Amino acid sequence: MADLVTFGEAMIRLSPPNFARVEQAHSLDLNAGGGEFNVAVAAARCGVPSAWVSRLTDNPLGKIIVNNARAQGVDTSSVVWTKGDRVGLYFLEFGASPRASSVIYDRAGSAISKIKPSEVDWKKVFKGAKWFHTSGITPALSASALETTSAALKAAKEAGCTTSYDLNYRSKLWTEDQAQAAQEPMMQFVDVLMTTEEDTKKVFKIKGGAAGDQKKIDVAAYKSVAEQLAAKFKFKTVIITLREDVSVLKNTWAAICLTGGKFYETPKHSIEIIDRVGGGDSLSGGYIAAKLDGKDDDYAIKFAVAFSALQHSFPGDYSWATKAEAEKLMAGGETRINR
Amino acid sequence: MADLVTFGEAMIRLSPPNFARVEQAHSLDLNAGGGEFNVAVAAARCGVPSAWVSRLTDNPLGKIIVNNARAQGVDTSSVVWTKGDRVGLYFLEFGASPRASSVIYDRAGSAISKIKPSEVDWKKVFKGAKWFHTSGITPALSASALETTSAALKAAKEAGCTTSYDLNYRSKLWTEDQAQAAQEPMMQFVDVLMTTEEDTKKVFKIKGGAAGDQKKIDVAAYKSVAEQLAAKFKFKTVIITLREDVSVLKNTWAAICLTGGKFYETPKHSIEIIDRVGGGDSLSGGYIAAKLDGKDDDYAIKFAVAFSALQHSFPGDYSWATKAEAEKLMAGGETRINR
Amino acid sequence: MADLVTFGEAMIRLSPPNFARVEQAHSLDLNAGGGEFNVAVAAARCGVPSAWVSRLTDNPLGKIIVNNARAQGVDTSSVVWTKGDRVGLYFLEFGASPRASSVIYDRAGSAISKIKPSEVDWKKVFKGAKWFHTSGITPALSASALETTSAALKAAKEAGCTTSYDLNYRSKLWTEDQAQAAQEPMMQFVDVLMTTEEDTKKVFKIKGGAAGDQKKIDVAAYKSVAEQLAAKFKFKTVIITLREDVSVLKNTWAAICLTGGKFYETPKHSIEIIDRVGGGDSLSGGYIAAKLDGKDDDYAIKFAVAFSALQHSFPGDYSWATKAEAEKLMAGGETRINR
Amino acid sequence: MADLVTFGEAMIRLSPPNFARVEQAHSLDLNAGGGEFNVAVAAARCGVPSAWVSRLTDNPLGKIIVNNARAQGVDTSSVVWTKGDRVGLYFLEFGASPRASSVIYDRAGSAISKIKPSEVDWKKVFKGAKWFHTSGITPALSASALETTSAALKAAKEAGCTTSYDLNYRSKLWTEDQAQAAQEPMMQFVDVLMTTEEDTKKVFKIKGGAAGDQKKIDVAAYKSVAEQLAAKFKFKTVIITLREDVSVLKNTWAAICLTGGKFYETPKHSIEIIDRVGGGDSLSGGYIAAKLDGKDDDYAIKFAVAFSALQHSFPGDYSWATKAEAEKLMAGGETRINR
Amino acid sequence: MADLVTFGEAMIRLSPPNFARVEQAHSLDLNAGGGEFNVAVAAARCGVPSAWVSRLTDNPLGKIIVNNARAQGVDTSSVVWTKGDRVGLYFLEFGASPRASSVIYDRAGSAISKIKPSEVDWKKVFKGAKWFHTSGITPALSASALETTSAALKAAKEAGCTTSYDLNYRSKLWTEDQAQAAQEPMMQFVDVLMTTEEDTKKVFKIKGGAAGDQKKIDVAAYKSVAEQLAAKFKFKTVIITLREDVSVLKNTWAAICLTGGKFYETPKHSIEIIDRVGGGDSLSGGYIAAKLDGKDDDYAIKFAVAFSALQHSFPGDYSWATKAEAEKLMAGGETRINR
Amino acid sequence: MADLVTFGEAMIRLSPPNFARVEQAHSLDLNAGGGEFNVAVAAARCGVPSAWVSRLTDNPLGKIIVNNARAQGVDTSSVVWTKGDRVGLYFLEFGASPRASSVIYDRAGSAISKIKPSEVDWKKVFKGAKWFHTSGITPALSASALETTSAALKAAKEAGCTTSYDLNYRSKLWTEDQAQAAQEPMMQFVDVLMTTEEDTKKVFKIKGGAAGDQKKIDVAAYKSVAEQLAAKFKFKTVIITLREDVSVLKNTWAAICLTGGKFYETPKHSIEIIDRVGGGDSLSGGYIAAKLDGKDDDYAIKFAVAFSALQHSFPGDYSWATKAEAEKLMAGGETRINR
Repeated sequence: MADLVTFGEAMIRLSPPNFARVEQAHSLDLNAGGGEFNVAVAAARCGVPSAWVSRLTDNPLGKIIVNNARAQGVDTSSVVWTKGDRVGLYFLEFGASPRASSVIYDRAGSAISKIKPSEVDWKKVFKGAKWFHTSGITPALSASALETTSAALKAAKEAGCTTSYDLNYRSKLWTEDQAQAAQEPMMQFVDVLMTTEEDTKKVFKIKGGAAGDQKKIDVAAYKSVAEQLAAKFKFKTVIITLREDVSVLKNTWAAICLTGGKFYETPKHSIEIIDRVGGGDSLSGGYIAAKLDGKDDDYAIKFAVAFSALQHSFPGDYSWATKAEAEKLMAGGETRINR
Repeated sequence: MADLVTFGEAMIRLSPPNFARVEQAHSLDLNAGGGEFNVAVAAARCGVPSAWVSRLTDNPLGKIIVNNARAQGVDTSSVVWTKGDRVGLYFLEFGASPRASSVIYDRAGSAISKIKPSEVDWKKVFKGAKWFHTSGITPALSASALETTSAALKAAKEAGCTTSYDLNYRSKLWTEDQAQAAQEPMMQFVDVLMTTEEDTKKVFKIKGGAAGDQKKIDVAAYKSVAEQLAAKFKFKTVIITLREDVSVLKNTWAAICLTGGKFYETPKHSIEIIDRVGGGDSLSGGYIAAKLDGKDDDYAIKFAVAFSALQHSFPGDYSWATKAEAEKLMAGGETRINR
Repeated sequence: MADLVTFGEAMIRLSPPNFARVEQAHSLDLNAGGGEFNVAVAAARCGVPSAWVSRLTDNPLGKIIVNNARAQGVDTSSVVWTKGDRVGLYFLEFGASPRASSVIYDRAGSAISKIKPSEVDWKKVFKGAKWFHTSGITPALSASALETTSAALKAAKEAGCTTSYDLNYRSKLWTEDQAQAAQEPMMQFVDVLMTTEEDTKKVFKIKGGAAGDQKKIDVAAYKSVAEQLAAKFKFKTVIITLREDVSVLKNTWAAICLTGGKFYETPKHSIEIIDRVGGGDSLSGGYIAAKLDGKDDDYAIKFAVAFSALQHSFPGDYSWATKAEAEKLMAGGETRINR
Repeated sequence: MADLVTFGEAMIRLSPPNFARVEQAHSLDLNAGGGEFNVAVAAARCGVPSAWVSRLTDNPLGKIIVNNARAQGVDTSSVVWTKGDRVGLYFLEFGASPRASSVIYDRAGSAISKIKPSEVDWKKVFKGAKWFHTSGITPALSASALETTSAALKAAKEAGCTTSYDLNYRSKLWTEDQAQAAQEPMMQFVDVLMTTEEDTKKVFKIKGGAAGDQKKIDVAAYKSVAEQLAAKFKFKTVIITLREDVSVLKNTWAAICLTGGKFYETPKHSIEIIDRVGGGDSLSGGYIAAKLDGKDDDYAIKFAVAFSALQHSFPGDYSWATKAEAEKLMAGGETRINR
Repeated sequence: MADLVTFGEAMIRLSPPNFARVEQAHSLDLNAGGGEFNVAVAAARCGVPSAWVSRLTDNPLGKIIVNNARAQGVDTSSVVWTKGDRVGLYFLEFGASPRASSVIYDRAGSAISKIKPSEVDWKKVFKGAKWFHTSGITPALSASALETTSAALKAAKEAGCTTSYDLNYRSKLWTEDQAQAAQEPMMQFVDVLMTTEEDTKKVFKIKGGAAGDQKKIDVAAYKSVAEQLAAKFKFKTVIITLREDVSVLKNTWAAICLTGGKFYETPKHSIEIIDRVGGGDSLSGGYIAAKLDGKDDDYAIKFAVAFSALQHSFPGDYSWATKAEAEKLMAGGETRINR
Repeated sequence: MADLVTFGEAMIRLSPPNFARVEQAHSLDLNAGGGEFNVAVAAARCGVPSAWVSRLTDNPLGKIIVNNARAQGVDTSSVVWTKGDRVGLYFLEFGASPRASSVIYDRAGSAISKIKPSEVDWKKVFKGAKWFHTSGITPALSASALETTSAALKAAKEAGCTTSYDLNYRSKLWTEDQAQAAQEPMMQFVDVLMTTEEDTKKVFKIKGGAAGDQKKIDVAAYKSVAEQLAAKFKFKTVIITLREDVSVLKNTWAAICLTGGKFYETPKHSIEIIDRVGGGDSLSGGYIAAKLDGKDDDYAIKFAVAFSALQHSFPGDYSWATKAEAEKLMAGGETRINR
């Protein structure tokens, strides 16, 4: 029985090694991951009994995904298996300035996009659970995935769970207007919103000023966004991640958190990017873990940022950091070799 | 202007290295290939100006396929490009006795399965061409692909081309009855049929005796099959490939050819399998090249078998052999290191 | 709660790629495995809820081992963690005739060799369990490991489990006489013995005739060994695996099983060796799975041999086969590519 | 029929992975490339029908080079093949500060160094062509290569082509005085000169001031160099590339262009170096493509710099960028992951 | 007969490629190295006849270590071989900010930790030698290793050698107090001490001020430390290395040297880190080589820093630089590609 | 001071992994080796102090070769270094039936082909030496290499060495008639000839019957060849290796030795080929080592064959076997995993 339940798609990720383009590739590194999958892994690594719910094709690719989750201690017993459909894929190309990293999705027709609300017994899934997390990717996959997401959120609230939602707007899956129309009605079931200033503007048409410079961040504008969000949707907590893209291979990483009418701001971590995919997911997972562990708000957001800062230094979508490492980083960190 | 035109799908092939299962994979080797694509490459390597026609999504995966064809000198200027759909994939797992190699297709919704007959100007494509080749995979992809295949065969005959057709039955794409219903009407436009005894039985319900032992071959039965095929469909030439699966990593390889009422039989080559995918395609390409080069029937089938025997010793779906190597093998071959 | 519990060491295995010697290596492939670990994985892949009990150092190497078990669905919640000691390693060198594959152990001082009987609550571990499996490697690790093994077997019998024991003599861990003195007293708690003719002779001084030719097997002699074992130790079942080393890269694989006074003999599978480590463990796991699934004796041993024959074709110590594949192989198998 | 024809050597490039020295290498990554080859590829990727003329040994190494060109759509039908001589090689060692990257040439005796003017029918080659490009590497290879280069330039002008010439001084091939003596007489046939301030000083003894700091660039000095060059040799256009070596792995990249008596200056791109070989060639190819596409001077040089800035982020000597990417970068670029 | 003799442990180093964690690894890159081993290699590459003394298990891992030393021209004829014990290992994880690189030792019970003073005939070893070097790692391995180190230092002085000692405190091997108690008595036999401010404080309780900021260095404080050391232990020379950890992948590197009552300070090199392990060892080796070559103090320390700055740009523990490269870097260096 | 001195070329070998053709390669595995180099390594591994003499270009490729020799304990202090010329290369393509392995040489202009007799002080080289070995490859490289080989053989005899010569005919270096004319005069200085029946026929026009079937060997014919050779050239010993090419990946390996008028014949070893290059060189090295160790003729040739049979199972040109392994194989061998 899991404390945390997450729901969403996981894909097989294929990426050419050594900064080659996909067009140049003679081999592809294989990883597994997906927004809510990554959140479950992050929380599990921090000691939270976690479960991930999805729908998967019963073939070796689907098994890879489940094996990856189980290896990290994530419960997959509520995954819905099908003989049909397919496992979603995405191709990830690592860039270096002035070439940004980029993603080619090949996820159309995936098993989870065909999920029907009736296929998951949410009551059973949420028995004993304390927290439910999903994101704006899941409802974007199809009408029935939207319907299922909505049902899940409702059921989670009924089961007494705290609910969190990462807005995660994906322009390749739906338009900004579609995203708004579909998601606004669900926000009533959401306690904690994780997002970026950019996604908020696109989906909820809420913005915080001039904003938008990827290389320098205006915290005041971000705070205004958080306040507007909290006001409009009655979120208990709004978390906005702050990423500065100094260059493709060099970022900074921080977050602000508005909760109980109070702002918490974290230190800014300098990041030498190895793999930035899933950074936000690790933050969500770290935050949930800290809260489930009874930590206070200031600690929780700082821990979440430290834990996810580390995530940028490992290959793959999900975190391989430990709680102890994140705590050491919160306490100042160390760049010398540890021996 | 190409002497040989082929038409069909090519896919990106992803295979785990070192005999690992797909489920075990942490990286996948990437190759490109497909039945008719492989035939065009084989003929091009033997010196035939060759072109390959298909429909592809305009993304890095589609470009990989075209780059592979062009690298081998195959003309791709008649490929139809689309922004939509997807590039077909397949996962190939290399086996060792008692585990057979196996394939997982992920080709549903590929660009060529959405091809419409109107998208290719066959008259233009066949201008100056001497030979057209396609296979039973193409019409299996969709109703419109079947329609396009049929149109292509008809147009090829009208343009004065010799036509060849590899029966290539794929049970994962259609049933035996569907394959029969769809293909029998097209056989009137086919001059040369390449097939195996097994596929003939499944698609045309023609068999040659008890048959069926994968480890020992009954040539008489195979000859009977060839004769029945020639009689029923008025093929000018019927080629049946003879593969003995001594073990997963050890095969023998030969063929019989019935043409002008006469049988030609080739020596049996012992094969240490490196990669057996595309063996039949290389045979077809080698045969077409020999005929376009004016070689006699006995030479053509022996060359085709030697050329394609070599193909089993390279990684990838298509041939990297040379005409000279195949001729040396026809003349007896050599297993000593050549230095 | 697991139906099957196994107990023993798992190690990190490091092997040079591409048949290089350890002395030549510039990189080493990393796998995890160990006799009883492999048995748990094999049974889990056949659908048996399985748990593996061991003692591990809490560092990244220990985590790799547990991650591997969990990925396969094996429960590791009873593993004893320690901050001290070390994780056992072994170096595996793949050979080709006339060079045999070979192993260098670096397992001295491993965490499990320091295990104390008091560290495992066997009563709790066996709650609800139906079968317990261990092997002759575990008691060879140290005096306290022997003591713990003995306690485990006793506790398993008390909990009503069927117990199985793979004799697995390792000359690098103890002498033949030590192995005999230590293990004979424990045999009273064993229901099913898995072994080879060779190990039986060394440990129990029981032999079946001239025997000993690695390339040709004398089944009669093996049957005599089984009968003597059953008679002496009152085993319910004796399984003897029959491996012919035709060459380093080519083996045959079969087994005989004596149970209820009756002999069951399996077909002999031709094996093209990719990785022969863990073949016997997969057989044990397959056999246990079949018996727990209520299969009859003839089926169980044939399934076990088919399942473990497949295991020789994957890299790594433990099985990646599926029940369905093993059943297909029992029904005759197929060496053609499956597409 | 190609719009752009280039002429020069291409080599097989062998480079140790992961920043190892050549002396440390156990494997070498293989690429193909060469100054004029890279220019042809760059232009072809921008949509220009391009051809590359050279002389190659007919062995697998020579075929690799031609396969690489064809894969990118470059016409190689005018390559002169020989059974003798050899294919030039070079070993590339990737550095990191304070160790610069470095090159070991093994190109003596290559097929193109033995080329004779009579071996290429330039009239036929330039039929329909609009632009000819070569560089200072080709005449440095041998006396006959110089003679052939000169003949080619003359023939190109006679055929009505625009001609461009990259000065590309290679001290390992000839002395500064030899380079001057050989090349000055050919400059009368050159319309567009691509060069660096450093090479100009060495070959033509033209300098623009104090100059020479690799880490900070003095644009005024560079402009003076361009003006002197244009004045002395009557070039229609002079392009000088401006590279600041902030560190081995961090450069900036820009250019100035003097044409029609007017200077065009580009923005300076920050570059995280993956592979800086061929940067200048991509610039030349991008510039030629823009001009052949009818773009104005300001656009052409800015496009060329953007297109070649991207080239530093791919492994290999030649570009894998697209026109669309370069245009996006001209419009401001993006360092966020694109998904 | 070697001019330089070093004494200490070398280990097999196993590191996951591409910034993966050990816990993520599917393969490990294998290198060999160790403090005094690396010093011998560095000096040998600078032209000094060098020998390395140690104790090793006679298995493939021990042979790898000796093969590595011999490949670099280091004499290993005084290595003590044993059939027992084991070869020490360490696992190295490469980090990127904010994750530091880190090391997991698995060296307990290694052959050298079991060395007895009587096993090495130091008189014979030092015959004709001019310099002896060891470090604070060796005596930390065991009581008998400490005893042997002490005997070696004494014998070296008796044989007329200059002796150098790298303090190299390893907290995973002993406490600060143990290190002090064990090493202070040996310092009377040491002529040259190499150390860092940090180690000095921990072992000898000598500090130079506030100190301790890893990102900015206070040279004055470091000078004070050197003076206190020289005063207390009568060292002829004290070398303190100055590393600024700008980030995990970006450091600066310099040193100060106090000798003959005079300070020598080197320029600060900017370093793009490929592999920082062994940087200090290369410095020691470079310094010894320069002194044995008769160079003056200013030259020696500057050469040593340049030589070891380069070492950070190669994979592996020991240097692959050449004397010529280091001299070129002393003269200003070059970050442009060298071709 | 070495007991064995060998003289000849070593090259860098580049081979595509995984049975790819050179034309398919994206990376090449790098090894070092050469006939006489391999002999020195083989003998050194059997405990013989060995030295290898050659001429090498002083660049990283030349250093790789010397590092490889030194790693195996081979003395390289008599290698002649030059700043000019180049290091010979060869490309090796691994085959599988029906494709033979093959070699592309790129060795023209190598440093050793430019060697002059005056560059080696043979008197000094042979001081204290007991055996000299060279082969028919060295004199084939150039006129001056022939002259130097001849001088070396003479000097070796004068120094009292036993001399051995591996006929090793290379058709890509010279014609059969050139080989005969050049080598017959040198045979007076040769004590031991190693050869194959095939090379003897080509170079000395001596044959032993019908012969020539690569798959079945006629020992009688081979004995006749040995007798004719001994009679004509007064060799003390003639060794003929017997290789049956059952297939590309399966050989048998044996030898006959005629010495003192008596024939010694070895058992035939079944070989699963991993890398057959250098098999004969390991045999020569093993034989020399056994004789220098005072072993009798029967033992020596059997040991040599066993030692070199093992060599076929390692990647690379030279042996990584040990004396102990070869002795174990002589005693019957073992194909079971050794653990």
